[in-house]
Amino acid sequence: MAKFITIGERIHCISPTIRKAMDEKDPAPILKRAKEQIDAGATYLDVNIGPAESNGPELMTWAVKLLQENFDNVPLAFDTANMKAIEAGIQVYNRAKGKPIVNSADAGDRIEYLDLAAANDAICVALCSKAGVPSDNDERMSYMMELLERGMGLGMDPLDMWFDPLFLVIKGMQDKQMDVLEFIRQIAEQGLNSTGGLSNNSNGMPKHIRPIMDSAMVAMAMMCGLTSAIVNPCDLRLMETIKSCDIIKNNNLYADSYLEI
Amino acid sequence: MAKFITIGERIHCISPTIRKAMDEKDPAPILKRAKEQIDAGATYLDVNIGPAESNGPELMTWAVKLLQENFDNVPLAFDTANMKAIEAGIQVYNRAKGKPIVNSADAGDRIEYLDLAAANDAICVALCSKAGVPSDNDERMSYMMELLERGMGLGMDPLDMWFDPLFLVIKGMQDKQMDVLEFIRQIAEQGLNSTGGLSNNSNGMPKHIRPIMDSAMVAMAMMCGLTSAIVNPCDLRLMETIKSCDIIKNNNLYADSYLEI
Repeated sequence: MAKFITIGERIHCISPTIRKAMDEKDPAPILKRAKEQIDAGATYLDVNIGPAESNGPELMTWAVKLLQENFDNVPLAFDTANMKAIEAGIQVYNRAKGKPIVNSADAGDRIEYLDLAAANDAICVALCSKAGVPSDNDERMSYMMELLERGMGLGMDPLDMWFDPLFLVIKGMQDKQMDVLEFIRQIAEQGLNSTGGLSNNSNGMPKHIRPIMDSAMVAMAMMCGLTSAIVNPCDLRLMETIKSCDIIKNNNLYADSYLEI
Repeated sequence: MAKFITIGERIHCISPTIRKAMDEKDPAPILKRAKEQIDAGATYLDVNIGPAESNGPELMTWAVKLLQENFDNVPLAFDTANMKAIEAGIQVYNRAKGKPIVNSADAGDRIEYLDLAAANDAICVALCSKAGVPSDNDERMSYMMELLERGMGLGMDPLDMWFDPLFLVIKGMQDKQMDVLEFIRQIAEQGLNSTGGLSNNSNGMPKHIRPIMDSAMVAMAMMCGLTSAIVNPCDLRLMETIKSCDIIKNNNLYADSYLEI
């Protein structure tokens, strides 16, 4: 079994520090945040440049080169509403450490992101949703099938579509949490990969609770077969939990030092 | 869905302090440890007096009265190789807060503990093992069926048999962990209750790792449907994880204060 894959979410233009660094092409704040995430054990780094309507391709190219040159071709996820920026990023991307990830397609307006991933031999995060939150797992499954068929029709390896069940906020949708987990199991039972913005579950909770709740959620999701998540790798408790679940699942051999690796 | 039930394991004669207090009938150390566990959120307290060959019934009677009088009839689990001591304990036990638990029967030499539980309208921890560690889940299931049939034949409510899959030590049996979890799911799929000495999984690991590994394990086990565990309730991380999983499973309504309750 393969180890769980973490996609670090902290290079995101929603952060004022990162937005400013992207505007000014100032490497330091971006490199700092990349290093923190890699040191904490992130496998992939997500690069979210937002809509980036005017300068998307140029900005993404700059960011990809910056990160891969400084961190030994660290694998990246491309996260922006500007599809041309993703294409430009992939063109300068070095695959030595893993395929690029396109983040993200869905079965609605964003279906073309899947085409983009297929055309560029990339992994694609595929949200099992169309417009808004799916009302149940039958709906999730029908969107997943749409995405799967389209991707395979375009020649993608099914394992390169990482299906996202859409984690839901507990404060407001507490009674839907087990559905999400059950759907992860359905993805896994088909031998497919999954991912998602896990911390959405704890949105709106007090700050000290979020790492506790996120850790419980990731362990339950890994039991169901979740193979990846988009997370804050600097959340120590979360990363400890992921590493421990990898031991329990026999994805990684136990050693007393397993938390430090 | 019912909340997860924790059985506090810290009143155990293996502790020199507790052994001495039991020998000398000194209430203070026992009350102290009971209070710590109740304050930390334990539902039941396990009372382990060891073999107690000479004075079992008298010692158990003393302990039951002591604990229930001081802690508002706290529910108890009776844990000893001396069956007469369990019977004596049940005779003075007040059921206001829950049936007593007999800890434990198995499908081998300890099968009579099930008879004892049946005769006394008690809950029984029922180990799905006979002699040593079951080699696979088929074996676990056959023992479970033996126990279930015997208990039901004696008029027990099947929900009063809490099946124990036998948690196994990761250091040595890492590749068996998912079997144990899968078996918990099989118990749950039949609508039955389960429990076990969860921390056995982390036996022999460095002290600072055990709460981390136990927390990951309990979340995965709760995802599979584990309904109870015999634990150290003073392990804060473990209790936080259990409470969080109860929220995710919708066993308990979310409030920002849920960890303090």
